[in-house]
Amino acid sequence: MNRDYADVSMAVIRRLPKYHRYLKDLLDKEIYRISSRELSRMIGFTASQIRQDLNCFGGFGQQGYGYNVEELYNEISKILGLHKSYTTVIIGAGNLGQAIANYPSFMKYGFKLLGLFDVNPKLIGMKIRDIDIFDVDALEEYVIKNNVEIGIICTPKEVAQDIADKLTRANVSGIWNFAPIDIKVPGNVTVENVHLSESLFILSYLLNEKEYLNK
Amino acid sequence: MNRDYADVSMAVIRRLPKYHRYLKDLLDKEIYRISSRELSRMIGFTASQIRQDLNCFGGFGQQGYGYNVEELYNEISKILGLHKSYTTVIIGAGNLGQAIANYPSFMKYGFKLLGLFDVNPKLIGMKIRDIDIFDVDALEEYVIKNNVEIGIICTPKEVAQDIADKLTRANVSGIWNFAPIDIKVPGNVTVENVHLSESLFILSYLLNEKEYLNK
Repeated sequence: MNRDYADVSMAVIRRLPKYHRYLKDLLDKEIYRISSRELSRMIGFTASQIRQDLNCFGGFGQQGYGYNVEELYNEISKILGLHKSYTTVIIGAGNLGQAIANYPSFMKYGFKLLGLFDVNPKLIGMKIRDIDIFDVDALEEYVIKNNVEIGIICTPKEVAQDIADKLTRANVSGIWNFAPIDIKVPGNVTVENVHLSESLFILSYLLNEKEYLNK
Repeated sequence: MNRDYADVSMAVIRRLPKYHRYLKDLLDKEIYRISSRELSRMIGFTASQIRQDLNCFGGFGQQGYGYNVEELYNEISKILGLHKSYTTVIIGAGNLGQAIANYPSFMKYGFKLLGLFDVNPKLIGMKIRDIDIFDVDALEEYVIKNNVEIGIICTPKEVAQDIADKLTRANVSGIWNFAPIDIKVPGNVTVENVHLSESLFILSYLLNEKEYLNK
């Protein structure tokens, strides 16, 4: 990173991937200039929210000109660390692990998948997109030897903490966790959880709130 | 809902599924009383945040006693609409759709999966957990006939909007969308998006921030 963004709130940071996705769509359509008002119409944040958010990263917007889409996209990519590349492995090669392995934006943004790991003898030795499925017993050694930076946990919740411990001992920097528990790791390891049920429960809340308000 | 929670902020609501998950774990361990301090240690929110959040829903906590785990769990379940049941279908029976169909907390909390839908002739006619995979051409009719309330989109992004339009015409109340686009629906349909790449990008941000701060 070139600048110190340490004082930018995590709430703003969490909105950046969405800006990133819309700016990418604009670039794909060869649109190179956009006003905060147009961005607002597309993304659904208010124009004033957008100006506030993007001001945190220096003044890309110019009065009467709008934002330079490419500059803004590149800067947000850099803030998110997407100008780098990362080595990753997936633990759990069931449906979810395979879905992640096939996820389109995974490779595109520099997340290089080196291997998948599983306990199931039927899966071990198979390949997904030319990537081997290994025995999970070989995980620690593999991660150390190949300097794997990110472990992606797609196992049942019962074994997720054990896998996280193995990844930690093998010196990963980050864990992307899909198991429905909060895994514990030392402070030098970063964890990002995807708790699918949380999102489903919010949908359920919103459906009921609507019903309630319509009464 | 018994009470009017319309003035509770969405930020608080979005933390409720996490409280719900931890309270369920406590009940499973037959722990019926907990202080905000202990909850704080487990969940990772500050005790004062917890007190503030839970005060929004009436005073379950009593000075010197702590929270009644079961009461709090039941109330949060109700707020989230988890005391009801919902009929659902999954569109896209590939790896992700199958992973969601097998997701453990799906059935447990009243989300009843009636069927999966796909375009792939190899999948149509197969079953996942005794649930049929149908031809996507039959989607609208099936949804209308069976009063399906929630459509879960696990298709590639290119067809996601078309599926959302079909679901809307067939009168679903909610859409749980895993395709990496923001689908557009009329105001009477509620959408909850799971954008996996957004979570991956946040992990990438956090890894870089750490690197930056360690310098």
